[in-house]
Formats: sequence, C-alpha cells, structure tokens
Amino acid sequence: MASEEVESYLYSEEAIYFRSSASWRVRIALEWKGIDYEYRNVDLVKGTQQSEEYLKINPTGKVPALITKEGKALTQSEAILEYIEEIKPERPMLPKGAIHRAQVRAITQTIACDIHPLQNLGVLIHAGGSDQEKRVEWANYWITKGFTGLEVMLEQYAGTYCVGDHITMADMFLVPMVYNAQRYKVDMKAFPLITRISNTLMTLPEFQNSHPANQPDAPEEMKNSAK
Amino acid sequence: MASEEVESYLYSEEAIYFRSSASWRVRIALEWKGIDYEYRNVDLVKGTQQSEEYLKINPTGKVPALITKEGKALTQSEAILEYIEEIKPERPMLPKGAIHRAQVRAITQTIACDIHPLQNLGVLIHAGGSDQEKRVEWANYWITKGFTGLEVMLEQYAGTYCVGDHITMADMFLVPMVYNAQRYKVDMKAFPLITRISNTLMTLPEFQNSHPANQPDAPEEMKNSAK
Repeated sequence: MASEEVESYLYSEEAIYFRSSASWRVRIALEWKGIDYEYRNVDLVKGTQQSEEYLKINPTGKVPALITKEGKALTQSEAILEYIEEIKPERPMLPKGAIHRAQVRAITQTIACDIHPLQNLGVLIHAGGSDQEKRVEWANYWITKGFTGLEVMLEQYAGTYCVGDHITMADMFLVPMVYNAQRYKVDMKAFPLITRISNTLMTLPEFQNSHPANQPDAPEEMKNSAK
Repeated sequence: MASEEVESYLYSEEAIYFRSSASWRVRIALEWKGIDYEYRNVDLVKGTQQSEEYLKINPTGKVPALITKEGKALTQSEAILEYIEEIKPERPMLPKGAIHRAQVRAITQTIACDIHPLQNLGVLIHAGGSDQEKRVEWANYWITKGFTGLEVMLEQYAGTYCVGDHITMADMFLVPMVYNAQRYKVDMKAFPLITRISNTLMTLPEFQNSHPANQPDAPEEMKNSAK
C-alpha cells in the first residue's frame, strides 16, 4: 500500500476538548511521518461524537478516528499508530529488536491503559460530577500513581528518549500525558526523567506543530499563549 | 530469536484475583502458540505485587509480567502478545492486511483502554470503597457502555470470530472481558454478537486450559465448578 493512501481526515475533538491527548498522539505520528491530512473537529459539547454520522465512523463515540483514502475508518490511537508504521516504515516509530519494541509498547500501554482512561472527561464526570475540585483530585491521584511506576520504567529503558536514543511511539504518548498531568496540577518534581524527556521532545517541530494550542480550532487566547 | 527462548515465567495474580483478565489474555496466547511456561502467582492480598522483588520485574506493581529466558521482564498484556507474535509467527494472532490488523488492535484497545481499566480492582476500591454494591454498579456501568460500542464494531468486522474467520488477539481479549462482565452482572442479552463469539471460543482447548478455574492456584470450589 503506498504511503500516499493514508493521508486522510483526522477526526479530533480539539474543538472543545482541544487538549485531548489521544488525538494529539496521532497528530505527532502524522507529523513525524510527513503525512498530509485533513483535520476535522468533533465538537463534544454539541454532541457531534454521538451523531449518527460520527457513530458510523467510530461506534464507540470516541476520538480520534482516521479515515484512509479508501474510506476505511480506523479507531484507537495506538492501533492507528501501528497502522501508520506498517504502511510507511520510513522514520520508524518502533525500534529494532523484539525486546525493545515490547518496551516501547509497555510504555504506550502504561499510559493508554493504566493512566489516561482514569482521567478521561467521561470518567471525571462520573466520578466527580460537576465538582471541579473533586475531578482534579481524582485525575491527579491516578496520574501521580501511574507516573510513579513509569518513572522507574524509564530509568531502565531510557536514553535521550523513552527507549534508547531514538524517538518512538512511547515518546508520542508521553508528551500529551505530561501536558494533561500539568493541567491536573500533578507535582512533576517527583518525575525528573519524565520531565526531562518531555521537555527535550517539545523542542522538536513535530511535537510543536501538533500541540493543541496550534490547532485551527483552538481558542484564540490559547494560540497566543503557545510558543 | 528462536521461539524456544520465550518460554518463561508468567507472573499472574490468579492466586487471589484468580479471575484477573489481563493475565488470562497472555495465557491464551501462550497456549495458542504452544509455548511452555512456568506459572507463578503473585498474591495481591499478601502484597506480593508491591514487594521489592516483584517491583524489579514490573515497576508499576501490576500483573501480568513475562520473563524471557534471557531474563528480560516484559509487562503489559498487549505488548507481551505482540512480542510473542513477533518471535513465534506460526499460528498468527494478527491477520494479513494493515486494515485488518488495525481492526484487531482497535478491538483489543477498546477492551484494554476503554473498558477494562475502569473495572479494575484498584479503581473499584477508589470509586466504591468497601461498598460491594457500589463497586458492582460502577463496573457494570462501564462494561455495558463499552460493550455497546464494541457490539457495533463487531457487526462491521466479525465473521466466525472478532475479525473475519480466523482467531486473532482480539478474541484473546474478548473472552476474559466477557467473563468479567458476567461477574459484574452485565445483561448480556443486549450483546448477541459478543456472546456468540465468546461462546464459540470457549469450546476451544486454548481458551479452556487457560481459564482462571483451571489454574493451579484457583480455589478448589472454583475448580469443581469449571467444565
């Protein structure tokens, strides 16, 4: 399959939940591989994610989704990244060696399965109702708990980046998670390695261009605050 | 890497949380590939998962973990399944074609990222405290919500099994999730396709042998109730 066939529509919730980290992961990968895509926002407040049209694309009513040129709708950020890697292997997002690939996927899944789901908006509403303080407390608890294990994993796996000295999928999951952690007031002083790697990555254009503040539907005040 | 090198110790929480579905996924894959392994239980009540010894294996204090013959500790069930697939491609757990592989991974991640984390014991305790009814209610809510989308995904992807007519990783994630759903009293009548596929899979020896009730450390009364 030619790599040109990927370029596609990225459904994203940035419009309202412009900080959505799962969509950001996919944008980093698309930037990394140099794949053009059409950006579409899914407005969670208007309920677009539950519209008949969007549920045809993703029956779980979640973002992101990626529609390929053949019209195939793909869902789940990690599945999308693996797909992108398979059809466009240049600038690999997975290292050589099965053990190192397993380490990369262990990091992406620690973030995607253990940390991120517990600070998702739907869960925060279910856990904290309209009480903003309770929501922040819940999110802060789970991110701090998750980062505590992740920091030790990185002590074992990291070089310049999460696994060794090459950028991988793990880095593309780390940066958006750190962004959320800051949003929920997690004390990052406890996580020097996570902080150092995330800061290094944020100097790169692929991570900057894909940043929530730099999306077409981000609110003006956010765009102004972005570097 | 020769496939014999995988065979390894499977750390598992079956001793106490013998129904642990993330460990079951890995056991199905090992059975499917015909890989011998040494089964070790991690006793969550005794706190073995927080012991110095176990945290060296998995710094997040979670199960499962797989130790390869070279002494490498791998964590996160999906990362472990991808690793097993890479080093022993016979009896593939991923289909041919990037789109079909993306569909398989979308199902595994819908289960591993959207459903399973929200009915994990740690979260139930945090959400429901010691109130057993509140715990069941919370778990039931998230599994039902997740299965509603998953059922529609299967309408689009399934044949005999989750994606087409061959068994894949998606099936290895489905069966343990259905087992948990039944435990938390989810009304499965609303999910005929999930039920049909899971029932079909449970007739196969790989899924039966790996069943929680058939593990060495399952309580006697559970062993007797297993088929």
